[in-house]
Formats: sequence, structure tokens, C-alpha cells
Amino acid sequence: MRAMTANRRFVLKRYPSGVPVAADFELVDVPIATPAEGEVLVETHWLSMDPLPRLRMDPNAKFPPPLPLGALVVGRGVGLVRASRADGFAPGDWVAGELGWQEHAVVPATALRRVDPGAGPVQSALGVLGPSGITAWCLVNVAARVREGDTVVVAAAAGSVGSVAVQLAKLAGARVVGIVGGPRQAEFVRDAGAESSVDHRSTSLAADLAAALPQGASVFLDSVGGRLHEAVMERLAEHARVVAFGFISAYNAGAGAQPEYGRIYELIRRRATLSGFLVGDHVARFPEALAALSTLLREGRLRNAESVSDGLESAPAAFARLFDADPVGKQLVRVR
Amino acid sequence: MRAMTANRRFVLKRYPSGVPVAADFELVDVPIATPAEGEVLVETHWLSMDPLPRLRMDPNAKFPPPLPLGALVVGRGVGLVRASRADGFAPGDWVAGELGWQEHAVVPATALRRVDPGAGPVQSALGVLGPSGITAWCLVNVAARVREGDTVVVAAAAGSVGSVAVQLAKLAGARVVGIVGGPRQAEFVRDAGAESSVDHRSTSLAADLAAALPQGASVFLDSVGGRLHEAVMERLAEHARVVAFGFISAYNAGAGAQPEYGRIYELIRRRATLSGFLVGDHVARFPEALAALSTLLREGRLRNAESVSDGLESAPAAFARLFDADPVGKQLVRVR
Repeated sequence: MRAMTANRRFVLKRYPSGVPVAADFELVDVPIATPAEGEVLVETHWLSMDPLPRLRMDPNAKFPPPLPLGALVVGRGVGLVRASRADGFAPGDWVAGELGWQEHAVVPATALRRVDPGAGPVQSALGVLGPSGITAWCLVNVAARVREGDTVVVAAAAGSVGSVAVQLAKLAGARVVGIVGGPRQAEFVRDAGAESSVDHRSTSLAADLAAALPQGASVFLDSVGGRLHEAVMERLAEHARVVAFGFISAYNAGAGAQPEYGRIYELIRRRATLSGFLVGDHVARFPEALAALSTLLREGRLRNAESVSDGLESAPAAFARLFDADPVGKQLVRVR
Repeated sequence: MRAMTANRRFVLKRYPSGVPVAADFELVDVPIATPAEGEVLVETHWLSMDPLPRLRMDPNAKFPPPLPLGALVVGRGVGLVRASRADGFAPGDWVAGELGWQEHAVVPATALRRVDPGAGPVQSALGVLGPSGITAWCLVNVAARVREGDTVVVAAAAGSVGSVAVQLAKLAGARVVGIVGGPRQAEFVRDAGAESSVDHRSTSLAADLAAALPQGASVFLDSVGGRLHEAVMERLAEHARVVAFGFISAYNAGAGAQPEYGRIYELIRRRATLSGFLVGDHVARFPEALAALSTLLREGRLRNAESVSDGLESAPAAFARLFDADPVGKQLVRVR
């Protein structure tokens, strides 16, 4: 029987080979920690499932560094403050930050941001009103500067970032082609305003893209890499702006694996620009992004899509779904 | 015995396999053509050897299109007007344009530009005061916007474009690392102001680049692609600007061959930008570029480097040297 002071958490039991499976993680009981000066005790309510931590589940990872075996699995979350030894946070406050896959987290106050429960469902702080939405906003408005007349291809268009990027690109006046996996994602992306969708598993990917892009793509937001990247690079319009912000196609392929990102001929022929993007470069724009996203959400002009699994114990399966199940919208775990 | 009205020219006899050889071309005699209205007869004095036409010496070339067998070999030249049926051109004028590998060319006046013999040796219109110099100027000042504090890596740094780019980057206040082939090129590049040079054939290329780039490269001007591109991409500084304007490493590799141009991980990690560049996009800046280059040349602040071979019959060998002999500066053929 668990003590009232027990904290369930997932630790990394072994480094996954390929798509992570349940046996790569171990659910353990540890005592709930006590916050020190400047720290806050948070009760986890929601966890965000994101592809990037997969890169750290590799003993040879370079950047970000490997997650040690036995360490708490990393992941952002939203929760309620239960105890605070930091100014500005009091029991009952909703907060978001790096909580890890656990029921209770003690974290420095400086690593938390407050969540306004009046702005929308609190878990939005992990999706459309959090890193995913802000990333999409910066991609569309800062990195790619999407404008009227653009034809924007969004990779993983039904995913957490893609689903917001599709809608923001539409709002900016662009024509949008969403890259999807399966009919549910296709339906979502079209409902969100994309003119058309192309399935990344299609055996006629090149022809499908050619049909969807008669004038070529002027913008390509790519978090996938690999075969998809190659295929879209063959359909660029002149002076196209390609922004690469991930390469999920290789995240399960082992240390150092990364897709080649195209052939130089297409890049020169189209005088295209391919830029690497990390949202952390754009912190100065976060308040503006968040204000814009909140307004759009409140006015009903932005849809918030979520795929939710229940219980902390569902986290490994929810994490794996990112790579093999094409979830629609932000993949979340409701911890309580 | 050749008639006074005979025009010697090289035609493409067969499509080269690998680096072109003499037997790929045939020297034939044809009558000197007579200019029609709007055309000019030019006596070729200098021919420019450039790598790009190699891509057209392939039956499967897509863009630019294949050069037909039996067709005049393409190439820019400088010559004297011998007869004119076009306003603005008179016998005795020096002109530059697409003359082809032949002693006499009849070309539309609209395809010629006048060469001022007072601005420097007339053949400069093919190099530092022509496409090579203008390309280098646009690369340094428009595409990469080189500025003080930059560390600029120039591929093929002793070549026609590279040799000018090295000097312009120095004048812009940058630190320059030149990629060279062999000791003669290394010496030239250092004399031209590069802080260091790295030999692209080195068996310790990665280590050589690391030593030459302790802070990484903030700009990379790449006309080579392939193994060199990969190696430099591993040494980028954050927010580096990479401009790709050719891929000579693959020009002899057959139709459709083109090097992969790096791995997406480095691009995202460094938030680097990789842009394809064609100088034709920048025609509006050509007068400014030419004025700047002329002034620098006149003031002795810009060195004009040339490798010259004599006689039209030397053209095939001079062309092959671009790919296998690491010539210093602009490779030219003095036709008369």
C-alpha cells in the first residue's frame, strides 16, 4: 500500500531501440520531496508528450545530452502549487514548466510560469497557449513571414505545432497544404482550413505533391526530414523559404542519425533558403505570440486540438504514439 | 589550306564521362557567318573557362538543358567587333558576351556588352570585371552581407569567383579561411589576405577545419558541395549564413548527380541558414558591383588572378583543368 507521501514517477530503465516501448520505462515510488528556499511543490495534472526528449534517450546523444539510466523522464507539465517557498507562487496557483513524468515535482520557481485558468483549459498552456502554439506563431510570423499569396506546406500538419501553424498560415492569407498520416489527420487538417492534404505514407508521394502544388511551395515548415523533406524540396517555388525545426523521421534511428536534408541542385535552381530554427531564439516575441494566440482562441478563430490519455501509467504508450500513431493535435497525459 | 573566310570552332563530339578529355570535342572549319540586321560579327580574343557548362554536356541534363552533339561549345568571350549591323557597335569596339569556342562569332547586339579597354586588360571583363567578380561581389555584399567580425570560409578560394570573394571579404573586415587545392593555391590565397587555408584533399580535413575555425564559420560561400560542404557544416557558428552557388564536386558525376548538402541536425542546432544563389537574380546591383570592382582594381586594392592557355586548340585542356588541376584565378584561353 502506498503512503500518502509517495510520489509515483517514471524513470528511464533502458535506452529504447526504435520506437520506445513500455519496458524502456519503470514506474517507481519515491517520497514526495520538500521544497527548499526558492522552490515550489507542484501536483502534476497534465503532461505534455513531445518528440524531442526521444533524442536524449540515447547513450551517445550529443545535444541535448543523454538522459542517464534511472533518471526521471523529462517532460513539461501543468499542475497546481501545493506548497511554496518562493515569492509569487502560492498554494492553489496553476503553473507550467518542466515537471517530469511524475505526480509531484519540486522545481525552482524561476523554471515555472503562471497559468491563467481564465484564459482557457489549463492544459492549453502545454499546447496552443504554450510551447507548441508559440513555436507555430514564431515559425509562421517570424521565421517564414507567411503572407498573402504564399503556398505553405506544413509537415506533421495535424500535430501539436503543425495544427496551429496550419491555422495561423490560413489567417495570414496563405494557401495551405498539410502533410498528414492517415484519414483522421487528413480530415482534421482540412477542417482546420488546409486546401489539401498529402499523406506522407503514400506510395505516390511525389505525384501527390505535384498535384497539390501546381505552382510549387513558397514556404515549407519541416519538422520531419527524410523522404518527405526530399519530396517537398522537389516542389519548391522560386525563392522558397524552408524552415527546419525538427527531424522526427530519424528520432528513433539511433545516436547521430539524422536525415540528409535535400540536394543542393534544387536549392540553387530555386534560390531557396533553408533555415534551422529553435524557438528559444525568439523569447522576446513570446509575449506577443501568447497574446495573439489567446485572442484568436477566445474569439473562436483558432481550434485547439488534443489527444488525451488517462493516468500517469499511460505516459509511455502516449509517448510512443507520437512516432507511430499519428495523433491529432497535442498529445497529452491527464495525470489527475 | 584554310580559306581566309574560315572560322575554326569546337563542337561537342560526344558526351564526356567524368572529367572532359580532348576527344570529347572536335575542331571544325565552318564559313564565317555574315551578321543580319541587329547582329554583330566579333573576332574572339579571349575565352572564359567556367565549370557550369559541364552540366550541359550530358544528354540527361535537366537544367540547364543538354548541349546537342555537334553543337558549338558554349562559353563566354571577349573580342573585337569586325562588322556591325546594330546601332551602338562599330568595328574596333571591344565587347564581351556568349561567343562560344570559336574564332569568329555572329551574335545579337542585345547579347553583348561593351568593354572599356581603359578600365583594365580587356580579358578582365571575363573575370574580376565580369561575371566572376560580380558574382563574388553579390555573394559577399548582398547574399551573405559579410561584415566586420565575420569568419568567412570560401570554397575554391583560389578560383575565379573565390579569389575575388576572399579579397572582398577581407575588405569588408572579415577573417577569411580559404579552401584550396595544393600549395600554389594556398600561397595565392594567403597572399590575397586569407588568415589561413585548408586543403580540400587533406586526409585530416575535419581537424584542419577545426584548427582554422576555433570560433566556427559565420559565413560559408560554397561552390563545391560534397565532402567539403559536410565538413564545413560541422564547424558553423550559431546563426551562420551559408550560400550555395555551385557544386563542382559533382559536375563530372553524371546526369542528376548532385551532392547531398549536409545534415539537418547541424542546421537546426546552429540555427544556420543555407541559401541557394544565382547571380542572375541580382542584375539590378551589377552596375554598383562593377563600379566598386573597377575602383578597387584601379586603386591596386584588388588583385586580378588569371591562368592563361594559348590558342583555341587549348580550350579542351583548359576546360579540364577547372576540374582536376586547381588553377589559380580565372582560367582563360587566349584565342589570338
